[in-house]
Amino acid sequence: MQIDINCDMGESFGPWPMGNDEVLLQYVTSANIACGFHAGDPLVMQKTVRLALKYHVAIGAHPGYPDLQGFGRRNLQMTPQEVYAMTLYQIGALAAIVRAEGGRLHHVKAHGALYNAAAKDRSLADAIAKAVQHFDAALILYGLSGSAQIEAGKALNLRTCSEVFPDRSYQDDGSLTPRAQDNALIDNSVQVANQALQMVGEQSVTAASGKKIGVLTETLCIHGDGVHALEFARAVFFALKEQNIELNAP
Amino acid sequence: MQIDINCDMGESFGPWPMGNDEVLLQYVTSANIACGFHAGDPLVMQKTVRLALKYHVAIGAHPGYPDLQGFGRRNLQMTPQEVYAMTLYQIGALAAIVRAEGGRLHHVKAHGALYNAAAKDRSLADAIAKAVQHFDAALILYGLSGSAQIEAGKALNLRTCSEVFPDRSYQDDGSLTPRAQDNALIDNSVQVANQALQMVGEQSVTAASGKKIGVLTETLCIHGDGVHALEFARAVFFALKEQNIELNAP
Amino acid sequence: MQIDINCDMGESFGPWPMGNDEVLLQYVTSANIACGFHAGDPLVMQKTVRLALKYHVAIGAHPGYPDLQGFGRRNLQMTPQEVYAMTLYQIGALAAIVRAEGGRLHHVKAHGALYNAAAKDRSLADAIAKAVQHFDAALILYGLSGSAQIEAGKALNLRTCSEVFPDRSYQDDGSLTPRAQDNALIDNSVQVANQALQMVGEQSVTAASGKKIGVLTETLCIHGDGVHALEFARAVFFALKEQNIELNAP
Amino acid sequence: MQIDINCDMGESFGPWPMGNDEVLLQYVTSANIACGFHAGDPLVMQKTVRLALKYHVAIGAHPGYPDLQGFGRRNLQMTPQEVYAMTLYQIGALAAIVRAEGGRLHHVKAHGALYNAAAKDRSLADAIAKAVQHFDAALILYGLSGSAQIEAGKALNLRTCSEVFPDRSYQDDGSLTPRAQDNALIDNSVQVANQALQMVGEQSVTAASGKKIGVLTETLCIHGDGVHALEFARAVFFALKEQNIELNAP
Repeated sequence: MQIDINCDMGESFGPWPMGNDEVLLQYVTSANIACGFHAGDPLVMQKTVRLALKYHVAIGAHPGYPDLQGFGRRNLQMTPQEVYAMTLYQIGALAAIVRAEGGRLHHVKAHGALYNAAAKDRSLADAIAKAVQHFDAALILYGLSGSAQIEAGKALNLRTCSEVFPDRSYQDDGSLTPRAQDNALIDNSVQVANQALQMVGEQSVTAASGKKIGVLTETLCIHGDGVHALEFARAVFFALKEQNIELNAP
Repeated sequence: MQIDINCDMGESFGPWPMGNDEVLLQYVTSANIACGFHAGDPLVMQKTVRLALKYHVAIGAHPGYPDLQGFGRRNLQMTPQEVYAMTLYQIGALAAIVRAEGGRLHHVKAHGALYNAAAKDRSLADAIAKAVQHFDAALILYGLSGSAQIEAGKALNLRTCSEVFPDRSYQDDGSLTPRAQDNALIDNSVQVANQALQMVGEQSVTAASGKKIGVLTETLCIHGDGVHALEFARAVFFALKEQNIELNAP
Repeated sequence: MQIDINCDMGESFGPWPMGNDEVLLQYVTSANIACGFHAGDPLVMQKTVRLALKYHVAIGAHPGYPDLQGFGRRNLQMTPQEVYAMTLYQIGALAAIVRAEGGRLHHVKAHGALYNAAAKDRSLADAIAKAVQHFDAALILYGLSGSAQIEAGKALNLRTCSEVFPDRSYQDDGSLTPRAQDNALIDNSVQVANQALQMVGEQSVTAASGKKIGVLTETLCIHGDGVHALEFARAVFFALKEQNIELNAP
Repeated sequence: MQIDINCDMGESFGPWPMGNDEVLLQYVTSANIACGFHAGDPLVMQKTVRLALKYHVAIGAHPGYPDLQGFGRRNLQMTPQEVYAMTLYQIGALAAIVRAEGGRLHHVKAHGALYNAAAKDRSLADAIAKAVQHFDAALILYGLSGSAQIEAGKALNLRTCSEVFPDRSYQDDGSLTPRAQDNALIDNSVQVANQALQMVGEQSVTAASGKKIGVLTETLCIHGDGVHALEFARAVFFALKEQNIELNAP
């Protein structure tokens, strides 16, 4: 049995640091690196790529809406054509830096509001999938498990990777409990690790209602921000190791 | 005998159009396409790449300082490290769009204040040359004839292309007459065409003083803006054609 | 009988010109000047303020979403707190330039997607109205006739100015026909002038269905862009003049 | 005897926090608040203004170059006209937020590379001084002691405030030791406090060479960033208090 653990990285910008990338890189197998639109800048991208290569972590482009102030978390009304072109732009920018450092781009995962929009809106999901395909059809497209993004990738015969969240609670229909609700986040590292183990081992999750539901689990997302980031990353990492589950990027 | 004619293109941004790219593309052999930092945006880049491919014009990345308001014409104090990373970023972004459209990136030419800085400051010139080399050592580096940029390219064994300006007057030392001076610009299309012919045919230019000086001429730059843009482009194009000089990108 | 004619202005940015402000200023009584977030920059703002003062046209701040590339026409998910602070910021920035030129700010009108959002969403409308009130309670708040923005202004005892569109067709419920529909725009200057006259004279408009509906008409919006901008502005201006309707900013 | 202590504040941006404003506000008498061009955003500005009002600290506008990535510390070649308009814009934006919170703008101090440029280049210094005068001639213009900025303010009959740096070493000619040199920064809080006391008490500083030189001292700048920020602020504050020197904004 094997699984991938991914984490968003390279989210510093200019004079403003964010996250604890170098430490987290020791507990993940793939890194989604911001491409300058919602976070990151060329120097931050270069530095993050070097760190990922140093720790042998697979590198993904993490395109987002052009909204530094909102960190790409505010929805922005864009046409599929705009999303396609901007995704291609961001993938290319990061890929150039990866190439210059002697690495190879491994995957693409949309960020924040773009990720959420592409999970539901098939036309945006198609735009992202098409950008990936046109840049390099060998890249793996990460997306929310069961979402329009995964469907869009499969429709283009891309390799996809279905993502789940060990630190989020789920609804009976397989969707994430909205962040506005009290029980959206799991804040106990034992529970987080247990949810991760269940997801990987049983391909299921126990929803907030207590109902067990199936969820295709190909990569576990670890959040790099938040007070518990490192604690949860370590808890998930060691719980999986203990069960002899191999940690590998797809 | 053959020569390249290049022109800056894709300088629209969002709701603001600029230039007359589709017409000019019929009189040039290579296009330097803005990469979103001083002009252009992902959709403009895509549209411009498509036009260049339609007219079989060689496509170059045209990286500039991150300064939309100043159109990349205001000097910005950047370290060579910053210039390197931002050049790589911009080349990669454009190259991705070119690749998605089925084309191939042909060259890189810095824009505006970055071009001028890299003509004189060898450390910045090296940073740009290194970015080109690390992205794709087969790309051709365009730069001001006789400048530090050309030297930097040669030092890295890049193919270089020495650029001259048919519509600018020259000083005895081979430098361009500063724009602040009255006689900086040649505003007569016959003179512009004649200067182009002399540059290509004799690899020389007659300076403002009347002195004839040698100038390595591998590409002629045609400005896409200005009232005379199209007139000059046509004048140069037809003058060269009449002399049976082949027009080809290097 | 009297009426105001307003027009969006100062929509150039950096090297990119837009519109024909100086000519249009001769046919309007109030100008909504972009504040640098969706268009305009400090120099453009200064130039536009000077022109408005020269032609004795009342000056309004025209705040928009921070989205130059999308010209403030793409919806951006912002909280009322963000809208409040950003509106205040933009009003203050323009007011400073107006003050330095010896003028006085007269009104505020939101731009594009922000205008549309505040027409429907009372919490955003309140945020804008509160920003106006907190900056200067004597300013007049322009908004779509019958919209949440006008209600929000009245709730804070601001002077409001209800805006109608002579070149747009209306639905039976008093809303504008969506731009996606074929008949959204009226493209005949005689019809535009007639609709303006009916709006001002009868405080009504004949909807696309033929039904006559009441519409509070305190200012007519003339679009500064589009092929017909100047033609429509002149048609409306002279039609009103001919009926001896006084043209005055409120 | 009395003196002002000023500190740059409000330098967070979007999701990225910076500094420790609320603690530092207890040890300073005036705050220079970033205006969104090199740091800060409308919400950060509002929050910082509220904090400054809470601690009865005088509020200044802190305009900078439009360069978030470079934090306004990279020189950008702007004309005096551009600097004038952009300074006015930033002052107005902050002043609007201050007014909405029931406060009153007290002073203006340029930031980073703009501060340094205006210390030497009289045309840029004049542009800033003119913007201050045109916005509100009662505002106090802060600038490097002995610099072109102070001269420019005096030439327009503005009240000026000459700034010195307790944590920087000085050259024999009264200029700051460039940051590139090893001894540019004083990193010992006792020395910093002693230099502050000498500056305030004797209006002099002992240069790196050991030579004592006169330096007009009207405000002490405390840096808000750096590892020693709070330690130095407290050291200076308590050293001055102990000597019964009143701490007041001018």
